[in-house]
Amino acid sequence: KHIVVIPGDGIGEEITAAAVKVLQKIDETCHIGLTFENRDAGGTAYDKFGTPLPEATIEAAKKADAILFGAVGGDQWDNVEPSLRPERAVLGLRKALGLYVNLRPVKVSQVLSEYSPLKPEIVTGTDILIVRELIGGIYFGDKCESEIHNGVERAWDLENYSVPEVERITKFAMTAAKKRRGKVTSVDKSNVLATSRLWRRTVIQVAKEYPDILLNHFYVDNCAMQLAMNPKQFDVIVTGNLFGDILSDEAAVLGGSIGMMPSASIGELTSLYEPIHGSAPDIAGQGIANPCATILSAAMLLRYSLNEDRAVAMIETAVDQALADGWRTPDLYKEGFKKADTDTMTQVVLRYL
Amino acid sequence: KHIVVIPGDGIGEEITAAAVKVLQKIDETCHIGLTFENRDAGGTAYDKFGTPLPEATIEAAKKADAILFGAVGGDQWDNVEPSLRPERAVLGLRKALGLYVNLRPVKVSQVLSEYSPLKPEIVTGTDILIVRELIGGIYFGDKCESEIHNGVERAWDLENYSVPEVERITKFAMTAAKKRRGKVTSVDKSNVLATSRLWRRTVIQVAKEYPDILLNHFYVDNCAMQLAMNPKQFDVIVTGNLFGDILSDEAAVLGGSIGMMPSASIGELTSLYEPIHGSAPDIAGQGIANPCATILSAAMLLRYSLNEDRAVAMIETAVDQALADGWRTPDLYKEGFKKADTDTMTQVVLRYL
Ligand SMILES: CC(C)[C@H](C(=O)O)[C@@H](O)C(=O)O
Ligand SMILES: CC(C)[C@H](C(=O)O)[C@@H](O)C(=O)O
Repeated sequence: KHIVVIPGDGIGEEITAAAVKVLQKIDETCHIGLTFENRDAGGTAYDKFGTPLPEATIEAAKKADAILFGAVGGDQWDNVEPSLRPERAVLGLRKALGLYVNLRPVKVSQVLSEYSPLKPEIVTGTDILIVRELIGGIYFGDKCESEIHNGVERAWDLENYSVPEVERITKFAMTAAKKRRGKVTSVDKSNVLATSRLWRRTVIQVAKEYPDILLNHFYVDNCAMQLAMNPKQFDVIVTGNLFGDILSDEAAVLGGSIGMMPSASIGELTSLYEPIHGSAPDIAGQGIANPCATILSAAMLLRYSLNEDRAVAMIETAVDQALADGWRTPDLYKEGFKKADTDTMTQVVLRYL
Repeated sequence: KHIVVIPGDGIGEEITAAAVKVLQKIDETCHIGLTFENRDAGGTAYDKFGTPLPEATIEAAKKADAILFGAVGGDQWDNVEPSLRPERAVLGLRKALGLYVNLRPVKVSQVLSEYSPLKPEIVTGTDILIVRELIGGIYFGDKCESEIHNGVERAWDLENYSVPEVERITKFAMTAAKKRRGKVTSVDKSNVLATSRLWRRTVIQVAKEYPDILLNHFYVDNCAMQLAMNPKQFDVIVTGNLFGDILSDEAAVLGGSIGMMPSASIGELTSLYEPIHGSAPDIAGQGIANPCATILSAAMLLRYSLNEDRAVAMIETAVDQALADGWRTPDLYKEGFKKADTDTMTQVVLRYL
């Protein structure tokens, strides 16, 4: 089982190294037979090779059983031409690897609810899985940077979805809901957008094949409200690329610390796992980044790419125990707790494995 | 000064009637010389005339000094053809009247922070003005409900902005910020969308004419996070139609009760004022709806359409005092407070005027 590791920029190096240690330790117990290989992407790749996503990285990723990704970006690349900025590595990998679904679990334990901006009685117990379509919609539709139209300069982007694209992501969401609490909320803006109307009728059509799943529909503005007012009402949320981008970030922050939030981007041939936080250039190289989101992303890798459910449970429990034991990286540190840097936190998790 | 009142559906009738009473009482003191006329729109208009937005309503609205709007919508019109649904009245009026900016103030007093899903230390003191572009973007771009493209059915919507459209809304936001704390946050998704790149460079260009205003830029996903994590960092937020729809609803709910939140939709010839909550068919006709959002919308009418700043202050203070005095409509009622129905709440506000 070959894992391609793409540390990227900023704290990417430190956090992926921590997660690899956890995977190696798990491998000793579960005998999965993991091998690892590092590849470049992001701003550091741009500095070395003149492109944020070298061909060699794409080729290696395509052949991998799974990809562990750190984070990309940093101020020093702000003035690089848009098509060569670090983020392009993210969009480029999604497209090249056909990573059509982004999974964002938001699970708020008692411990994490303390860090949520929401009142604990509203947020504790939240357990949402956001299923975002990741290689369609307005992200990858035709665009025009500038044209003259009726004598004025304008720019445009085409939002669009096809029936098969919506079918595929809906099936994924329905199947995921079966293993959870059996509820799917589809989010669109069908009172305004034609694309959303096609989205909604396709979701309704697909749902007929899943009679046990409870389906409801929210407009995106209402969903942004409901997530903040009553997040516990949601089980699985399925939505398009742009709405998913916004709602999954809102949900993540409501869930407590973004330093704890993993994600998976699933494709038909391979899948990519990464923490949702960024490259945090301000603390890079100091060895104080919270490795938990990346470690939990590695757990998602074991679940979705390698089907190693026992290993997943071991990692998730170990992270929970480290927190319950009072260990906190600086992003979560408060008086009365035990301060941990990246390495200490990783060692504590390894000990609990 | 002629006000066209459009009650609409559901609780629209009750809440606009309450706000009209407040305006009439203010008129006795401030001698503005207000006259009122009611017009139909929404589902009830559809039932009477076969259209949610009769020509007579548009004509009357065009001639009005300002429009006071209730709310539209209800389950009974769910199966009406999309182009005749109640919401079309809203979109139709915006376009017909050229209401290019939607203003959503979110001001969280100590009293309201109790109702916010956010922890009080995070939300109390929030004072944001969201300036949303309202007649452009993907809402009014070309659309296609269904076409066959490479052998599959798809639908599409065109997101687009022109330089003059962005200039106009940016100038509005900058001018508003001058009278506030002097900060503007522009929200886009310029790391992905061409339209957002034109948006951002136009905002930067316009900002040069306002050297005293502090301008920053957030991606929409990050803004959705920041609103929940730290709403007090914002003064004026300016954004496009779709992002504004989502962010202003998120901000509204974080701000406490949506039953208290007013809005203004400003045009060059006339402007429209409405509460942000909907028509609440479940409580319609019971006389228990919270009239405050509509009363505060009437205050915005006095400010933006009639320049009656003294009257505005009187209304806002009266509403604050009614709350401080412990009066609560059912949506906000908790033990220990004084229960008020629509009429009682209105009478209390009138008394404090
Ligand atoms: C970096 C950016 C292009 C990306 C996106 O918008 O998809 C990010 O926000 C995400 O959600 O992974
Ligand atoms: C009713 C709907 C079309 C409308 C919108 O999306 O603009 C509403 O959500 C709003 O924000 O006023």
